[in-house]
Amino acid sequence: MASVRTPDPNPGWLSDIALEETRSRVPILYVEGVPVRVDALGQVEQVGVLLRGSPTTGAMTRTLISGRVMHGESVRGALMRNLEKDLGPTAFPQLPPTITPFTVAEYFPLPGVAPLHDPRQHAVALAYVVPVTGDCEPRQDALELTWLTPAEAADPEVLADLEGGRGTLLKQALSHLGCLP
Amino acid sequence: MASVRTPDPNPGWLSDIALEETRSRVPILYVEGVPVRVDALGQVEQVGVLLRGSPTTGAMTRTLISGRVMHGESVRGALMRNLEKDLGPTAFPQLPPTITPFTVAEYFPLPGVAPLHDPRQHAVALAYVVPVTGDCEPRQDALELTWLTPAEAADPEVLADLEGGRGTLLKQALSHLGCLP
Amino acid sequence: MASVRTPDPNPGWLSDIALEETRSRVPILYVEGVPVRVDALGQVEQVGVLLRGSPTTGAMTRTLISGRVMHGESVRGALMRNLEKDLGPTAFPQLPPTITPFTVAEYFPLPGVAPLHDPRQHAVALAYVVPVTGDCEPRQDALELTWLTPAEAADPEVLADLEGGRGTLLKQALSHLGCLP
Amino acid sequence: MASVRTPDPNPGWLSDIALEETRSRVPILYVEGVPVRVDALGQVEQVGVLLRGSPTTGAMTRTLISGRVMHGESVRGALMRNLEKDLGPTAFPQLPPTITPFTVAEYFPLPGVAPLHDPRQHAVALAYVVPVTGDCEPRQDALELTWLTPAEAADPEVLADLEGGRGTLLKQALSHLGCLP
Repeated sequence: MASVRTPDPNPGWLSDIALEETRSRVPILYVEGVPVRVDALGQVEQVGVLLRGSPTTGAMTRTLISGRVMHGESVRGALMRNLEKDLGPTAFPQLPPTITPFTVAEYFPLPGVAPLHDPRQHAVALAYVVPVTGDCEPRQDALELTWLTPAEAADPEVLADLEGGRGTLLKQALSHLGCLP
Repeated sequence: MASVRTPDPNPGWLSDIALEETRSRVPILYVEGVPVRVDALGQVEQVGVLLRGSPTTGAMTRTLISGRVMHGESVRGALMRNLEKDLGPTAFPQLPPTITPFTVAEYFPLPGVAPLHDPRQHAVALAYVVPVTGDCEPRQDALELTWLTPAEAADPEVLADLEGGRGTLLKQALSHLGCLP
Repeated sequence: MASVRTPDPNPGWLSDIALEETRSRVPILYVEGVPVRVDALGQVEQVGVLLRGSPTTGAMTRTLISGRVMHGESVRGALMRNLEKDLGPTAFPQLPPTITPFTVAEYFPLPGVAPLHDPRQHAVALAYVVPVTGDCEPRQDALELTWLTPAEAADPEVLADLEGGRGTLLKQALSHLGCLP
Repeated sequence: MASVRTPDPNPGWLSDIALEETRSRVPILYVEGVPVRVDALGQVEQVGVLLRGSPTTGAMTRTLISGRVMHGESVRGALMRNLEKDLGPTAFPQLPPTITPFTVAEYFPLPGVAPLHDPRQHAVALAYVVPVTGDCEPRQDALELTWLTPAEAADPEVLADLEGGRGTLLKQALSHLGCLP
């Protein structure tokens, strides 16, 4: 007889039903990362933006690194896990020494309430800028990572392509970095 | 026949069972506030600490203003609601113009894992310093609000009295304000 | 015989010659303030921009509140003094409880080196957002204080009117406040 | 005939007399760096403190990395120059991608006015935490760089040894990093 007490190997993961139910009850905590390449003085030279194909419609959208903080997981752990998922194992991200985010992004299910929205849920994301020094090889559903100069990233067309209104978030990151044209 | 579609008047509130279940699934998002009195130049003169009696044991503990962000509620809305709950309607808190917290506090259910812990849940709190200019009259279960000078608040005995390891959080607030002795 | 030891009533003030010489030797420390009006939840509703006539050319330029930190003066003291100089004595500015600026602005004498420049000097400014609750009556050389919504303030024409490239700084303030459209 | 217009090879350097005079006129802008070693998740494991012998008294004092921003020099440039001066050319400091300091430190010439003082001058320092990944070989007058755990660095005896009251600044850095015990 199989034990019903086998420890869950991924305790933070939820079934689709449980996740759906949870999303209707509380805001879901996320982390978001803006990968950057910096010069010797720490000044940002390039910003990484993901290009992702929708599994249902095939439409392409741009996005940032983003993922849920799981039960029992630290904010740093969640940020690193999502960076590795989207940038691959050789990106060598340099997580910031402080856990204070550069901003907090609030996503509401209804569009138009706030600049950011997420049709699936009410989500609150802690957003970080993360310098990466290694090679980035997006895995999973991310098709491509594009490196843009700050001026290219601030192009209104690029910003409008970011899903969920994240153009606003990317602009905030560029501004925080002192390189919003 | 009673309608099953009657809109919930407090949609963010959860039954005890639903809350218990949710707490086992995802980290719960909180806001925490450190009320302060400032002088004409904005320098902190006093820090407010709540004294609260445990409903079960009767033991007194100190704490900060703290509460859950409910589904559909903004971070600012949650902060204001909890400030009013604990300081009364005439405190006139001045919420910060930026939503970026001075720190992010992570509470894990097991003691000893991290400086902060909460036996009920994995909670992640956005922490803010909030100047108040009016009269504070704690309601509900908060028995008393004590105003301490930064030096008094930084006393190891006071810090040790704060529940859940929040002495660490109060020290971070004092340090952020430039008044940790 | 007049005493040569009479204490200087304004010890931080320098003669034109001394200031000129000093400006050629070291970067000059400034504070800059972005006055804002906030709603009950602390969210910014309006941003104050000064309209100033040039004493020499008569041309009108927009600017932020800005002034030198004098010898012996604290950063908070300098910020308050400059707020009072430009907004009058009844503005009731709420200086932030932390001295950490939202950004550091670097002005170089040569245009084009950096987004910000100041033909008179190399200046480094600590920039703060300051909610004001009272009536603002600009004195001295500031002709007018205009209150703009964040959307109006972010208009490229308005931003371009700000002297010394301060449109960049105002954009950073709006972004920090989460209200850059 | 020797040209009197030979460009100064170190335009930011001042003669002792000019520096003395300038120090009596304006606050002098500094940068300060707290070098840290971080783990894979960005969490601080060790903090670097300099041990320096006084050239006049021979007494040993602890200090942080600290130096003046010179005329025409950027804040990032000044921070890097001072890190290289005190940590050597192979420390590989990772300057933060944002120029916003974790705090602003004000030093006044008179002791007792503020926690920090500098008998030579009124100085205002922008303070940064800087992860280093390479080998540190202090040069010049720094005799030794000691790596301390956050708990060791927070020891009151260590903090009291830091010159000019910089124990307060180090405590602020530890608190900002979430590792002040």
